[in-house]
Amino acid sequence: MTRVTVWNEFRHEKESTVVAEIYPDGIHTVLASVFEDAGFDVTTATLDEPEHGLTEDVLANTDVLTWWGHAAHDEVSDEIVDRVRDRVLEGMGLLVFHSGHYSKIFKQLMGTTCSLKWREAAEKERLWAVEPGHPIADGIDEYIEIEEAEMYGERFDIPAPDTLVFTSWFEGGEVFRSGCCYHRGNGKVFYFRPGHETYPVYHNEDIQQVLVNGVKWATPNDGPAPAFGNADPIEAIDLSDERTVH
Amino acid sequence: MTRVTVWNEFRHEKESTVVAEIYPDGIHTVLASVFEDAGFDVTTATLDEPEHGLTEDVLANTDVLTWWGHAAHDEVSDEIVDRVRDRVLEGMGLLVFHSGHYSKIFKQLMGTTCSLKWREAAEKERLWAVEPGHPIADGIDEYIEIEEAEMYGERFDIPAPDTLVFTSWFEGGEVFRSGCCYHRGNGKVFYFRPGHETYPVYHNEDIQQVLVNGVKWATPNDGPAPAFGNADPIEAIDLSDERTVH
Amino acid sequence: MTRVTVWNEFRHEKESTVVAEIYPDGIHTVLASVFEDAGFDVTTATLDEPEHGLTEDVLANTDVLTWWGHAAHDEVSDEIVDRVRDRVLEGMGLLVFHSGHYSKIFKQLMGTTCSLKWREAAEKERLWAVEPGHPIADGIDEYIEIEEAEMYGERFDIPAPDTLVFTSWFEGGEVFRSGCCYHRGNGKVFYFRPGHETYPVYHNEDIQQVLVNGVKWATPNDGPAPAFGNADPIEAIDLSDERTVH
Amino acid sequence: MTRVTVWNEFRHEKESTVVAEIYPDGIHTVLASVFEDAGFDVTTATLDEPEHGLTEDVLANTDVLTWWGHAAHDEVSDEIVDRVRDRVLEGMGLLVFHSGHYSKIFKQLMGTTCSLKWREAAEKERLWAVEPGHPIADGIDEYIEIEEAEMYGERFDIPAPDTLVFTSWFEGGEVFRSGCCYHRGNGKVFYFRPGHETYPVYHNEDIQQVLVNGVKWATPNDGPAPAFGNADPIEAIDLSDERTVH
Repeated sequence: MTRVTVWNEFRHEKESTVVAEIYPDGIHTVLASVFEDAGFDVTTATLDEPEHGLTEDVLANTDVLTWWGHAAHDEVSDEIVDRVRDRVLEGMGLLVFHSGHYSKIFKQLMGTTCSLKWREAAEKERLWAVEPGHPIADGIDEYIEIEEAEMYGERFDIPAPDTLVFTSWFEGGEVFRSGCCYHRGNGKVFYFRPGHETYPVYHNEDIQQVLVNGVKWATPNDGPAPAFGNADPIEAIDLSDERTVH
Repeated sequence: MTRVTVWNEFRHEKESTVVAEIYPDGIHTVLASVFEDAGFDVTTATLDEPEHGLTEDVLANTDVLTWWGHAAHDEVSDEIVDRVRDRVLEGMGLLVFHSGHYSKIFKQLMGTTCSLKWREAAEKERLWAVEPGHPIADGIDEYIEIEEAEMYGERFDIPAPDTLVFTSWFEGGEVFRSGCCYHRGNGKVFYFRPGHETYPVYHNEDIQQVLVNGVKWATPNDGPAPAFGNADPIEAIDLSDERTVH
Repeated sequence: MTRVTVWNEFRHEKESTVVAEIYPDGIHTVLASVFEDAGFDVTTATLDEPEHGLTEDVLANTDVLTWWGHAAHDEVSDEIVDRVRDRVLEGMGLLVFHSGHYSKIFKQLMGTTCSLKWREAAEKERLWAVEPGHPIADGIDEYIEIEEAEMYGERFDIPAPDTLVFTSWFEGGEVFRSGCCYHRGNGKVFYFRPGHETYPVYHNEDIQQVLVNGVKWATPNDGPAPAFGNADPIEAIDLSDERTVH
Repeated sequence: MTRVTVWNEFRHEKESTVVAEIYPDGIHTVLASVFEDAGFDVTTATLDEPEHGLTEDVLANTDVLTWWGHAAHDEVSDEIVDRVRDRVLEGMGLLVFHSGHYSKIFKQLMGTTCSLKWREAAEKERLWAVEPGHPIADGIDEYIEIEEAEMYGERFDIPAPDTLVFTSWFEGGEVFRSGCCYHRGNGKVFYFRPGHETYPVYHNEDIQQVLVNGVKWATPNDGPAPAFGNADPIEAIDLSDERTVH
């Protein structure tokens, strides 16, 4: 059973009545409920817990970590970011949502600024599935329509994704690579755009379907743990002279 | 339960005593047995059956088709090739093995010549897992070693794979992109190099593991079936003037 | 000096007064003029010429071929398509414009249906540069705006591009991968969306800049002509016992 | 004229007689000479200069920076690394050679550990051109053979390259992705494996050809400088009701 840890900054919900109405117990609680309904083994962690709730033990027992943050990226300690990164490179899946594009962990794994354009104008968004055969598009129609969204627009300063699953259209004239898959080390990383705190987007069933698909895709396999450093001596290759050629 | 159809040219086994010793009932029988042991629902089909065993009905009930061919690519009818291709673009998975690189179906899906270098010298091969976090490397060590193999060498005239999982080293001085993943239409295609008929490579447990991984990866999802052609009129977009901006 | 051959179907211009007003001497004449101004050595060829103007000699002396076709894809002979394809795989660059997505040559090189959505509604298009460091975006702003365009929308059934340079936004709610780079064989292929015959888009200076950039990018290098087939015997590797290890 | 700055750690040459024999005036001097012969405008910079020779002014006047380091990666100040990274994301090209895979700048741009296997056994290497149509393979044969090299082997913990141009074969049984192209921000990054200080590999003409090709490929274009942050208001889109549909 896939073990999911849902991480949330959990500040807006305490400070904004608009957000508190949509997510009274925090965004992480809604996400956790989505993942529990999908049959995953779910725990949550938030910024203001000791070690942000991401102790060595928690991460060692996490298959897929999901990340929502916005206003307090700088308060995440570098030590915890390095710890998360090491686990991703070891194989842990990572799902980064919405304003998490500017989190330390995402920027560190991407190597770029991860900057973008944005506009809060409650505008219409359509997420088009441009790679419909990818498992993250499972159960989705040609596009997911969101009536009111914050806009994120290109140029999104990321490395070109290994696989681009969704591209967003926005009413105001922008496009955005909104569903991006990456291999990093032995781990898999999925960035998914929707999730602004003032719109009830995580209550949308199509969005929930993508979240669940994302966790399934990012779940680690039992692939090789590469050995790095000084290699076997060359004599390890036994080049036999006796060949059986037919 | 994933429905696998194992297609085999099934000529070498009848004509060569060397091959018949390794695969007395045909390569397809060994492959079918591997896939059955993995819990898939398996059927086989061969060149000399009517419609090469790939009737409309068979393909409509196939989730993943595997392809082994070598000496008689030209005897596969264009009509059946088109039929297989249409099913791949609809979502059926396709695994192409070894000399199947020169099959009509693979060349048509790649759009290139799919030419390569080869040498029959019973030389050592090592398939290195260069993307260890990919599901096709599940359960595999850093490399799979094959004591005696036919060599395939670069330049392999294919489009760069969406994901390169394995790269082969050969004793005689060549390298080869030997595990290549592609999305084509709604379908997924995996080319896997090993499989020369005069070596017992499909009896190798690591190779069998990759075959099973490949089927799992290529199994179709329930993604969107895109609508092509004349689109909805522009009025379908209702750009509301009433926005809720917080 | 790069030798460019501009190929045009050249039918709409003779049959439609709207098109004839925009391109009185044919689309190819306008394109040829753009390429001449850029300093290339330019010739043109059209469907109704013998061998569609694409003789062995013409192709042997072409570095980059550009392709505009729409209404008469089926009238292009398979023999000429194969001839063009062979030259692309040898290294000749190929630029495919707009409705050329459905040309035989593009479909053959892609291996997929190359289907898409379309709508003729004179709607606004914005081509966003999503890979601004790519040479094809040289001299371009963040986006190119076209006031009135035919819409092309996803799902565009192509292999994921090696590099995606432009993504289009359309007023009516669609997005489209509109600037797509591919390596195929030794050749480079660039698909560029704009070019509907009833809008004067090839008179747009930004579009002209992209066309010129595309030719420069697709111009062949003097890379290796791979040797295919039976390789050197294994003895070609001289594994010396005398090593100088420091 | 492309302005190239050749950066070298320049320590081994002063401490090892073996290295000093091969590169009496430093690796950077040999590289600078190669680039000057190619017609570039070349300067050099080394670790022990103030600001490692990479002042704001030097970088502002550099189109392509090349990086050779090995024993003293940790002595490169974080401030200078950030400065170089910012320039790459702005558009400056970066070529990273050999043991530079472990430099701060490369690791930061990749986001992964960039670890690998290595062995010093003076073994034979062959760099196979797997993407022969790429400009970095210009003028190169199917492979470059190096008689005595340090081995670098997979798993190389990097993001899959945007384009893989060369893959190395080593006598001792390993393969390596040895010519890797990336877009990062507006800049282009090329990693090229050869360059161990105890072998005279930068005196090899084929290797020199690749170095020059790499600089040409990585030279910045005049692409768009993306605007990030709060975007234009939605009213910027003038959706006219007056369309000209034919």
